[in-house]
Formats: sequence, structure tokens, C-alpha cells
Amino acid sequence: MKHRIVVIGAGFAGLQLVKKLRGANCDITLIDRRNHHLFQPLLYQVATAILPTADIAWPIRRILDDRKDVTTLLATVTGVDRTTRDVILRHGERVPYDTLVVATGAAHAYFGNDEWEADAPGLKTLEDATTIRRRVLLAFERAELESDEATRTAELTFAVVGAGPTGVELAGIIADLAHRVLPGEFRRIDTKTARVLLVEAGPRILPAFSENLSAYAKRALERLGVEVLTGEAVTNVSSSDIALGERRIPTRTVIWAAGVEASPAGQWLEAETDKAGRVKVSPFLTLPDDESIFVLGDTAATVDAHGKPVPGIAPAAKQQGSYVTRTIRARLTGKPVPGPFRYRHLGNLATIGPNAAVIELGRFRLKGRLAWWVWGVAHIYFLVSARSRLVVTLNWLWNFVSGQNSARLITQKETLRDD
Amino acid sequence: MKHRIVVIGAGFAGLQLVKKLRGANCDITLIDRRNHHLFQPLLYQVATAILPTADIAWPIRRILDDRKDVTTLLATVTGVDRTTRDVILRHGERVPYDTLVVATGAAHAYFGNDEWEADAPGLKTLEDATTIRRRVLLAFERAELESDEATRTAELTFAVVGAGPTGVELAGIIADLAHRVLPGEFRRIDTKTARVLLVEAGPRILPAFSENLSAYAKRALERLGVEVLTGEAVTNVSSSDIALGERRIPTRTVIWAAGVEASPAGQWLEAETDKAGRVKVSPFLTLPDDESIFVLGDTAATVDAHGKPVPGIAPAAKQQGSYVTRTIRARLTGKPVPGPFRYRHLGNLATIGPNAAVIELGRFRLKGRLAWWVWGVAHIYFLVSARSRLVVTLNWLWNFVSGQNSARLITQKETLRDD
Repeated sequence: MKHRIVVIGAGFAGLQLVKKLRGANCDITLIDRRNHHLFQPLLYQVATAILPTADIAWPIRRILDDRKDVTTLLATVTGVDRTTRDVILRHGERVPYDTLVVATGAAHAYFGNDEWEADAPGLKTLEDATTIRRRVLLAFERAELESDEATRTAELTFAVVGAGPTGVELAGIIADLAHRVLPGEFRRIDTKTARVLLVEAGPRILPAFSENLSAYAKRALERLGVEVLTGEAVTNVSSSDIALGERRIPTRTVIWAAGVEASPAGQWLEAETDKAGRVKVSPFLTLPDDESIFVLGDTAATVDAHGKPVPGIAPAAKQQGSYVTRTIRARLTGKPVPGPFRYRHLGNLATIGPNAAVIELGRFRLKGRLAWWVWGVAHIYFLVSARSRLVVTLNWLWNFVSGQNSARLITQKETLRDD
Repeated sequence: MKHRIVVIGAGFAGLQLVKKLRGANCDITLIDRRNHHLFQPLLYQVATAILPTADIAWPIRRILDDRKDVTTLLATVTGVDRTTRDVILRHGERVPYDTLVVATGAAHAYFGNDEWEADAPGLKTLEDATTIRRRVLLAFERAELESDEATRTAELTFAVVGAGPTGVELAGIIADLAHRVLPGEFRRIDTKTARVLLVEAGPRILPAFSENLSAYAKRALERLGVEVLTGEAVTNVSSSDIALGERRIPTRTVIWAAGVEASPAGQWLEAETDKAGRVKVSPFLTLPDDESIFVLGDTAATVDAHGKPVPGIAPAAKQQGSYVTRTIRARLTGKPVPGPFRYRHLGNLATIGPNAAVIELGRFRLKGRLAWWVWGVAHIYFLVSARSRLVVTLNWLWNFVSGQNSARLITQKETLRDD
């Protein structure tokens, strides 16, 4: 019987691992709760109506259709039986493994205030993105209908919490939407009066970047019309306002980009986790007490050569996927396994609005319009399918030429208020 | 004060009317429950994963952004006060009119069996389309997980009720999905064993077409693997089967394409309606007792020169929109108003699967692959925006070259069963 590898999660880490196991003569089962692999780095562009959903998500089955050694299951995992070596699916089905790879990613975290989620959605899934898109677009629609000035002002106030790349990208595009894209389309309101707040508890935005680029990003955001509030911790979120300390700012649209928490994989494995729920793994990315179980991507707590946490970005996940593939192949062929995993940080990228970006690749730093083009080419290069490369390029060019956002659809709940 | 025209509904009829009123020096308010105009003729392609949602829907505001005489409101109408001449929105807001145009379209009808809707969704909105797409794709996913043979067979049975163009188009593409697109991607099931039933109560499919083309369409569907069941009335639909007379066929996926019912506009207007809820209008498309209110599109019961009902298709709606524009312009300038509305039937078109179609334009009849290309060019021509023409063309070409359906995403409820 062939060696059975079960992989939970078809994100960057899991998919990379499965792809690199081509020809390894194993029996691979890939389990995911969704039918698509999602290109999360561009998810904020779906949330801000720049790209349609289909451009950044691909059916897992199609990606792997020529891999007869891989069985894909759309299923929800509820546990792992480490005694019998089975993954347990909802409704009790069991999938036996010889090697288990857990790469189930992370969700957004509210630091103990889970009740804020309803009024401050995060951005991790396609549904999150269409929810945010709907909320942002509906706020302008409600403002157009509103006769009370205070309510209208609240409708036209948008708060993004957390100033990492996702928060910066969201705030920049929402400001651009209000100040450049939408003004001609409304008759009763001036969308340019909209306020976009970027709230960050730390002392500066984009803390992973150098102070220089971080300061540039702040100025660029302010030019787009974003109010950058650093050193401000959110103390409450409700359906009518956001509280920063004693200050309450009326708003109907809060977006959460402030923190993540690992998936519940730690509980399935009964493994030790850190505060953010990430599983503590050996330097070889296995459970400390079970070499047949690998944990990687955002689900694992790993550190780089300087003892700093490995960031939750796609290149890190893919490096771990490739690394574990090498270990599995070495074990199967009886060759020496690789040494401990070593993360190689390639750089930081973030866009600011529709035509500026900051890039830091080691000592190489770039900002502004040219950086945006470099960022765009890099992201198109990494898209999974040739079709997506084509349509994303076209959509971006179209938006660039027409000054429009292509995908401004309000779906799911089209109507207003309590409808 | 300018003449105030309120238009309810931004479908083909309402949008055509507003477009043709350019320069008429009126104060126009266009109200719709959705923020987008939908190109319904291609909606079945979203439901079958050929096109992404954004390709066939455009924000109404953007279509009309250069029309400073038009105010667009995203709102739900709850009634019309004919005494004070106000349209009443949810939450009580009132929009006063001098001329009112009601073009609110139709919904699917279950002929008194509204409880079937949950198990047999119809296809009228973008949400309907993504719901059907999710259900069809999930049925294959559940079958891949299923160990019980009878349940697996039921999961792989698809029933489309109603054999007008929409039903024929849906059945053809679902059969194509099962027999050509998906087989390489599943490991445990053979998707080619899927059954696709097209159920029609009448004696033949595509009753609006000549018998000759109708018979061709039946053969073409059967070649694609569709079982065409004519003369079979649906007597019940449940979550586990569909009943045709005494026969019960286990299935988990039923799609309703059998009937439509007008929107509740008749009730708002306290006007006389026919059995399908369509408002009975004068030959001038006004209410018989109120010339300031026009009712058009699928909301109105109108007949052609032969006394046959005007079909619920886009060209008919657009002709009515243009006609009412001429009447309004004539009234405003004191010129003689046009004579009664006369419907000009341009023809019937329907596609059968991925590369065949039937076309009937007067005496001109065409079938097969060439008809499909004519159909495709015609539909691209009528798409509202230049961007859509480009991306729909590219998506179709891509599907044609790759043998794939581009937009196979399961969204909203990604997971299985009761999750």
C-alpha cells in the first residue's frame, strides 16, 4: 500500500506542499472547507470593488485535475484521532493517514471582544470581502437617502482598524472611492465629504517597514484623504460608533484588520499552542512528540534565525510547504532529512491607494508610482492560473484607463437597513 | 418647476426609458431595490459557472453618471399614494411624481406551491444564480464523499423544471459540466453517470419555436446527455425527490424555470391584474383610469397585433420603454402622442449546451454551431458596457479553448450539508 498523506487546508502552504509532491508515489488526500484556493494578497481588492471574486479564487479540483495521486475532499474537519491515525470529518467519516499535514490558516481576532465581529467584519474569505464591499457601498447609498445631517455624516464615516498592509490598502482604496470614483454619481450628497479613519494602536503604520517608508505611506494616505490615527486603541465597537478611549466617533462602517488567531487545529491535535492559538512545533515543523504530524503556515508558531516570529504572509507559507515536501520525500526514500526549517524573508510590499506602493526587499527600497507597477507585476506573476493573470491585468488596465472600479456590485443583501 | 418623473425598476424597460429621456429637461428619479442593472439573458451562464457575476451586472449609478437630470435611489418601494402622487419607500419616505413609470419585472411562480421554492430555486437575480451554482457544484462534492450508493445516485441527479429557453439552457450546460468539464477532477465518482432531467408539462420543449427547431433542440439535448421528459407535470418537490404524477425520482437538486409572476406593483397601484399578477393596461400602457401612471415590461399584461401576450423578453421591454419615452416627450411639448403600443417580435433565440443554438427570426431559421456563434455575437452586442463586451468575449474564448468553465466558485455557504 502506498504511503497515505492527508493535507488539511489548501491555502498557500498546503497547496504548495501538494504541488511539490508530484511524482512522489503517495496517496494524497487534500481536505478543505471551501472548493477554492484563495489568493489572499488581493482579497482587499475584492472588498473594495476593484476585482470580481472569480479573479482571485480557483477551484482546488481544477488546479489539481491532472494529479491522479490526489483526492480532493470538500469537507469540514472536526478532529484528529492520533491513536488510530484518522482525520475525523463532520458526520463521522474518517480519513486514515500515515503522514498528516495541518495547514488550516488563521481567522481574524478581536482580542477577547468577539462581540465586535458583527459590527467590524474582518477580511479572510471571499464572503468577508463581499460583505465589506456591500457595507461600504451601502453606506453611500443610505447617505443619499438620509435627510438627517448627523446620521448622514455617520454613514459617510469609515473606520479601518489596524495599519498593517491590509488596513493601509483598504483605507487607501476606500478614500479613493469616495474622493475620485463616486462623486459624479450621487446627486444629494458630496461623497468627497466622507471621512476615512485608519486607527492603529501602535506608534506608526506599516510597522514591518522601515520608519522612512512608513512615514511616506502616512503622507501618501493623507493626500488620498485618509485620517491616520496612531497610538489609538479601540475600546469599543457598536452598530452606531467606534470608541477610541473616551472619544466616540459615529460611524456605520468599521472594518477589522487588526489581528489574527490561528484555526482550532491546536485543539484537534491536543497540542500546545501560543496565545494566538498557533501550535508550537519542533524546528522541523512537526509536533514535538509526533513526527508524523506537520503543522505549517499561519497555524504554526515558528521563528526565523533572529528568533523573530515568521510573518503570516504567502511566501513564508510556501517556503514551509516546500520544506516539508523535502522532508517527506527524504523519509520515503530513506535519505537524510533536511535540517531545521529556515525562513528566508524576501521583503515587504504594500499598496497605498490606486497608484502608489512601498516596497522593501532587503536594502532595496522603492516607493510611489513605480513601486505600484512593480507590486502589480509581482502579484500578477504569482496568480495561480494563466486566465487570472490575463483578466486581472485587463481589469487593472480597465480601471486605470476608465478611472472606475470594475466590480461595484452589492450582492447577497441588496436592500437597505432591516430589509 | 420641472416635470417630475419617477421610474421604479432599472431593468430593461425602466433603464431604456430613462436613457431615451436624455435632454427632455425633466427631473427623473430612478428607484431600484438593487444597485445594479442585470443582463438577465446571460444569467443562466452565471448559474452554471461560465461567467462571473460582475460580467453581467453593472451599477445603475455608473450607467447614468453623466445624467445630472437623474437621481438614483437604492430603496424598496412599499406603495404608491395615488391621491397625493407619491411613491412610498420603506420607512415612510415619499417621492413625489407628476408621471410615474412602474417597471418592476417578475419573479418565479410556483402555481400555488410556494413551499417548493426552498427546494427548487428559480433564476431571476444574481443571488439566485450563485445559489443554483452552489447547489449544483455541491451536489458533485457531496457525491464524492458519499459511501451509500442510492444517496450518491440521488446527489448526481439534477432536475430542471420548465423547458423554455432558460430551462433548456440550464439543462444543457449542467449536462456538459457533468460529461465533459468535471470528469477528470473527481477520484471516487464518475461524474458522467450523472442524470440531468428536463421536465416539461407541455407536449414539447421550446414551445415558442417552430416544431422543427424544437425537435432539433430535443435531439441536441439528448446528445449532451439530458433526459427530456415532456408531458410530465410536477406534482411535488421535496428536499429528497421530485414527483411526476405517481413517479418519485430521488434528487437533491431541482431548478425551477417553469413560470413567472409579476411583482406586487398591482397591489401598490390598486389596479386590476390578470392571473399572473400583471397589471391590465390601456393600449397606451397607462392605467385605464390614470394617464399619469405607466406600467410596462413584465409587470404589464400586454398583447401583440394578433392578440397574443407579449413575451417577457428583453427586446419587448426595451420597445415598451422607448414607446413610453415618445409619449412622455410628446405630452411635455404639446405634440400629438403616438398611437397604441405595437409589439414587433424580432425572433427567438436559445442556446443548447456549449456550442449549439436555435434561432428563429421571422422566416429565417438557423441551428447548430453557427447559430451559437450568431447568438454569442448578438448577446455581446447587447451587453451594456464596453468592458463587459471585452471580458465576456474573453471568458467565452477562454472556456472554448481550455474546455473549462471559468467561474466555478462555491460561495456564501461553502461547506456541506447542515454546516
